[in-house]
Amino acid sequence: MSADNSRDQKIEVCFSPHDYPIYGATDNIVVIIDILRATTAICTAFEFGAEKIIPVASIEDAAAYKAKGYMVGAERNAVQLDGFDFGNSPYHYMSDKIKGKTLVITTTNGTQAIEKAKDAYKVVIGSFLNITILCKWLTTQNKNVLLLCSGWKNRFCLEDAMFAGAVVDLLSEQVAFEKMGDAALAAKYLYQSAKEDTYKFLRKSSHRKRLWDLNLKEDVKYCLSANKQLDFIPVLENGALVKMPVTANAFTNA
Amino acid sequence: MSADNSRDQKIEVCFSPHDYPIYGATDNIVVIIDILRATTAICTAFEFGAEKIIPVASIEDAAAYKAKGYMVGAERNAVQLDGFDFGNSPYHYMSDKIKGKTLVITTTNGTQAIEKAKDAYKVVIGSFLNITILCKWLTTQNKNVLLLCSGWKNRFCLEDAMFAGAVVDLLSEQVAFEKMGDAALAAKYLYQSAKEDTYKFLRKSSHRKRLWDLNLKEDVKYCLSANKQLDFIPVLENGALVKMPVTANAFTNA
Repeated sequence: MSADNSRDQKIEVCFSPHDYPIYGATDNIVVIIDILRATTAICTAFEFGAEKIIPVASIEDAAAYKAKGYMVGAERNAVQLDGFDFGNSPYHYMSDKIKGKTLVITTTNGTQAIEKAKDAYKVVIGSFLNITILCKWLTTQNKNVLLLCSGWKNRFCLEDAMFAGAVVDLLSEQVAFEKMGDAALAAKYLYQSAKEDTYKFLRKSSHRKRLWDLNLKEDVKYCLSANKQLDFIPVLENGALVKMPVTANAFTNA
Repeated sequence: MSADNSRDQKIEVCFSPHDYPIYGATDNIVVIIDILRATTAICTAFEFGAEKIIPVASIEDAAAYKAKGYMVGAERNAVQLDGFDFGNSPYHYMSDKIKGKTLVITTTNGTQAIEKAKDAYKVVIGSFLNITILCKWLTTQNKNVLLLCSGWKNRFCLEDAMFAGAVVDLLSEQVAFEKMGDAALAAKYLYQSAKEDTYKFLRKSSHRKRLWDLNLKEDVKYCLSANKQLDFIPVLENGALVKMPVTANAFTNA
């Protein structure tokens, strides 16, 4: 790695939305991570043509949008709520009917994390589906990066930490961050333990077990597959997620 | 491992005192971890004959004890405070003058963690100096175990997480925990990455760098050395830490 690639940027990981007040700073780029399954589902919805996604933290807000005629995804405890159009499965969003539409979603953890970070310099969505473009783009931004794991009800989650570590690992290959927090180091070590077989690595994790019990094995496999190489990053703008297209020539380091 | 060794106990790790309200439960055994350096210093003080250690969270409380004639250790940001008898270095407590005495201590992180957990079923102190006896004792207790990392100002710290992982790793060799939280799994993976050379593993960690800058290299080495095999566990009783002797025949699994 050449000296030209060194950066004064700081990279850190926050393992739970509960800790965001400790790690958050308004001039950070915050990457929201909820691998099983909210941020994977959001990336999938944009892939299948959604125009805009409004994340809301409460079921009440989601119901209010539903009453106004929006298509709404609503999940709690890994289960789709009655009366809504989608749950939290990426497969629910693989449909022509969302093309060009504004969707609304509320989930147990992911949308809570977005809510916490909404005043950051920029809030973007990360998943294995768009990890390559996400990391490339982050290296072109002269901003501190905070990887915010959604966790499970404010607890640490293995899959989110592992994904954060994958981002740290990929970024480290491209730039030499001057400052890397202890949580970023830990996440990177975790990913290095996991990367040969992420599915096996998560075998004992609590949320994989939860989804397995609900017969959502295919969801887990899809969420851990990094082969899509999507060419966009969902970004929060005026309270709604939109697709930020990122082209190769946008990269100074490409 | 035989089926007889399986336990219904849960083992989990809390990476920061800030998260204690999420993980804490009054019927847990809580192990306080502040490897660099408070819990190592506490174990050392008992090794050198201290009778009792009163942990206090604020400098004001520490000063009040000092005014009453107690010997008081007071540290903030890795530096001993003026007007007090000791800082946070284990070497400060290797002295005959503490023999039979009641000490008072306040530190940046460790004593804050004790304060948070004080209403748990039992609060004990862990360090590499007493890790063997600690783990043996934990296996004889039919209680859920929460390993509480003191962190750094409520942030995740690599050395505390690594030690928590060492405890999980040792316990897993002795009993099959039915329930292991995601943070416990992550800590265990971290320790497995670290165990060949914990000193090297922590090379980039923030607090090791902080102590290194203060020329406290020897402190770090001492805190990471697991060769002492102390035969006691400091335990919180009526607001003060005392030495709980643990003999081999106390173990049903010994």
